Amino acid sequence: MTERLVVVGSDAAGMSCASQARRRRGRDDLAIVAFDKGNYTSYSACGIPYLVGGVVDEPDDLVARSPEEHRARDIEVYLRHEVTAIDVDRRTLTVRDLEEGSERTEGFDTLMISTGAVPVCPDVPGAGARGIHGVQTLDDGKRILDDLASRPVRRAVVVGGGYIGIEMAEAMLQQSAEVTLLEMAEQPMTTMDPDMGALVADAMRDMGIDVRTGEGVEAFEVEDDRVTGVTTSSGTVPADVVILGIGVRPNVELAEGAGIALGRSGAIAVDRRMRTQVEGVWAAGDCAEKFHLVSRTGVSIPLGTHANKEGRVAGINIGGGYETFPGVVGTAASKVCNLEVARTGLKETECRATGFDFLTTIVESTTRAGYFPGATTMKIKLTVERRSGRLLGAQIIGRENAAKRIDALAIALWKGMSVDEMHQLDLSYAPPFAPVWDPVLIAARKALEDVQRGS
Amino acid sequence: MTERLVVVGSDAAGMSCASQARRRRGRDDLAIVAFDKGNYTSYSACGIPYLVGGVVDEPDDLVARSPEEHRARDIEVYLRHEVTAIDVDRRTLTVRDLEEGSERTEGFDTLMISTGAVPVCPDVPGAGARGIHGVQTLDDGKRILDDLASRPVRRAVVVGGGYIGIEMAEAMLQQSAEVTLLEMAEQPMTTMDPDMGALVADAMRDMGIDVRTGEGVEAFEVEDDRVTGVTTSSGTVPADVVILGIGVRPNVELAEGAGIALGRSGAIAVDRRMRTQVEGVWAAGDCAEKFHLVSRTGVSIPLGTHANKEGRVAGINIGGGYETFPGVVGTAASKVCNLEVARTGLKETECRATGFDFLTTIVESTTRAGYFPGATTMKIKLTVERRSGRLLGAQIIGRENAAKRIDALAIALWKGMSVDEMHQLDLSYAPPFAPVWDPVLIAARKALEDVQRGS
Repeated sequence: MTERLVVVGSDAAGMSCASQARRRRGRDDLAIVAFDKGNYTSYSACGIPYLVGGVVDEPDDLVARSPEEHRARDIEVYLRHEVTAIDVDRRTLTVRDLEEGSERTEGFDTLMISTGAVPVCPDVPGAGARGIHGVQTLDDGKRILDDLASRPVRRAVVVGGGYIGIEMAEAMLQQSAEVTLLEMAEQPMTTMDPDMGALVADAMRDMGIDVRTGEGVEAFEVEDDRVTGVTTSSGTVPADVVILGIGVRPNVELAEGAGIALGRSGAIAVDRRMRTQVEGVWAAGDCAEKFHLVSRTGVSIPLGTHANKEGRVAGINIGGGYETFPGVVGTAASKVCNLEVARTGLKETECRATGFDFLTTIVESTTRAGYFPGATTMKIKLTVERRSGRLLGAQIIGRENAAKRIDALAIALWKGMSVDEMHQLDLSYAPPFAPVWDPVLIAARKALEDVQRGS
Repeated sequence: MTERLVVVGSDAAGMSCASQARRRRGRDDLAIVAFDKGNYTSYSACGIPYLVGGVVDEPDDLVARSPEEHRARDIEVYLRHEVTAIDVDRRTLTVRDLEEGSERTEGFDTLMISTGAVPVCPDVPGAGARGIHGVQTLDDGKRILDDLASRPVRRAVVVGGGYIGIEMAEAMLQQSAEVTLLEMAEQPMTTMDPDMGALVADAMRDMGIDVRTGEGVEAFEVEDDRVTGVTTSSGTVPADVVILGIGVRPNVELAEGAGIALGRSGAIAVDRRMRTQVEGVWAAGDCAEKFHLVSRTGVSIPLGTHANKEGRVAGINIGGGYETFPGVVGTAASKVCNLEVARTGLKETECRATGFDFLTTIVESTTRAGYFPGATTMKIKLTVERRSGRLLGAQIIGRENAAKRIDALAIALWKGMSVDEMHQLDLSYAPPFAPVWDPVLIAARKALEDVQRGS
């Protein structure tokens, strides 16, 4: 008898899973059906700021695989279909057709929950007004573009200076808006320590973005159901459009309603093969918890690269193969104005929360040999366990050749390396790409000296 | 009593050693004297092609630390002084003052041999003519510049397509010469496999360099003691100047003459602390053998980054500290015309010579997310042990964000990782820097499939 795999959410995790399962099992063995309340499949959510900023032309440019391409591989896709409930005992779903307004029941043998994440919106007056946009799905991106096209937008306010917030602030600047970024914390880019975040704030201000820190949103000003300003402790900032860049939370209502266990991070608890605690129900992507290999805890890190990997792992397993997802070390990179910004592992507050006794080391080096034209500075900050010298985390900011350098540190973390071992690594050297001591080696060497000095 | 450290050769290895020893021991405890037959200290030999090409203005720009700066730290430096013999029993050196023409004997308690490498010159008629230049020391670079300035140079021939040969070919192009590169092997850049070297040859030809492969030098044509052409099996190429880019060999005559043991590679045998087999005699840099962590053999790899590290290790030990140099994995990078080229570990012939049963995997990916403007292709080739899936080597060629990606693979090699573990690594992702599956992960994943298929 043909088994039925139902995929809830047709972006990276869900469709990677579907593709891998299909590679291993033919349609007579496994029927695959995906539902999504949006209009797209398999797209790059990380590309949305570039779409809004005009760097990328069309929403379809961000689509890696269209519904038609999936269907051609015997993966049925229903867009504008929202799954509103799961009954894990009866193995059924309630599905609402958003076009028709009708509801129906669908059965499944195997279920993949890949419902992603939802943008966090401050719970303040006016939060439901038009012109306030979260940035999570490609439909969100399209809505923002439509909104910008529908009327003149002179003033944009971005609430929250996370990755998306910062990238969207730059995108709005590219749309010729006056941009204000409101960050509740000491500095934007709170995935980095404040001293590194300050460099990001400086770069944004240099670009002409009005970055205001320590300012939370108290209310949205609304006229005719449309946002006109954002009120903070310091007054009201006029706004023709508001972008939410505070962050996202895992979209787990559906799973929670079905009694599927969540982890300590609030995301769906999964094992190494991406199984939830309910037999035959799997989860992957932003809605699923990840195991952090440095802190040894469950974390929620919404990122396309994890979603793709996890979906693949689930799909291989559902397809009858064997694959595991070992976990993450918290690597992320971003281009912010003229800066490359990257991080991996644990920043200071995370080291502290995890209970590590640690020290920090900061070095400034050059992106090329000092004498090579175009050499600019790069800053690297390491967190290191004090007693062992083991690397706990790294943050890099520079103008070129910076972001991808985090990979070396991410692998060092992955393998539990100490700065003593790291400072001897055989990293590449050539004057256009690095000084003779690569910045990563300089940072490790300095950290080693700090450890030895017991500082 | 004050001990006396004599350093033979005042570039990276020698002066890193001197500096580290001085940091740990004051001048009353340790006198430090360096001799060099050239005119410079502590310079970037890797920068010479950029000096000749006019990318860097002055020879002094390549000097990291001048003789005066060393002297200010109580490190005596004698330039234009060649050490012609070592007597390890009597603890003396014969030193020739090249300006005065005089010779004297100098004593030492501790000796650092950092004599570097010498360019290989084909042993053919005319090899001693003027206008034929090796590229190893900054004096060589200065001589080439003087030669180019002294008369019109329309036609340059580069003999040998190693890193330096290729970089020098580009430099001569920047000097507006017609450039021919003669490579005896199937393809230039023989530190890579021929299929990857072919991409380098293509890029050079696109730039207008006449790359001729399978052509060895049979003679240099000479008129009035000056080179006028290079004769190969296919005829004679006219040349106003000839650059030797075949490679270098460790400069070990002095050590060999003193009875200091060499390793199997022909470079000076050293232990992890950079001690030669003679008590109190140390060696570091291009003249010293390195331990290759993948092939587990002694190798000769002339590279500034190793020289700096080894000199530092020797200096810490001479200074009374403890430091070791664990070895290398053969990482190297270069900018070739519009390409970034990098390698680490063992290429096919090296895998074979070491006795590995291996397979190769090649993938082509993009340097950024496919939809991101400016995305170009990148090629990664892996060599992998067939049975275990352990990474043995990697080669990368691309237009941007390529060279430094080799570091991730170099660390994977260093830690003996398998492609199974590697394909799950938490590498950074952002559309301007990488597709959602980083090319390194794509390569590892493909190699894993190849291993599993037993191909």
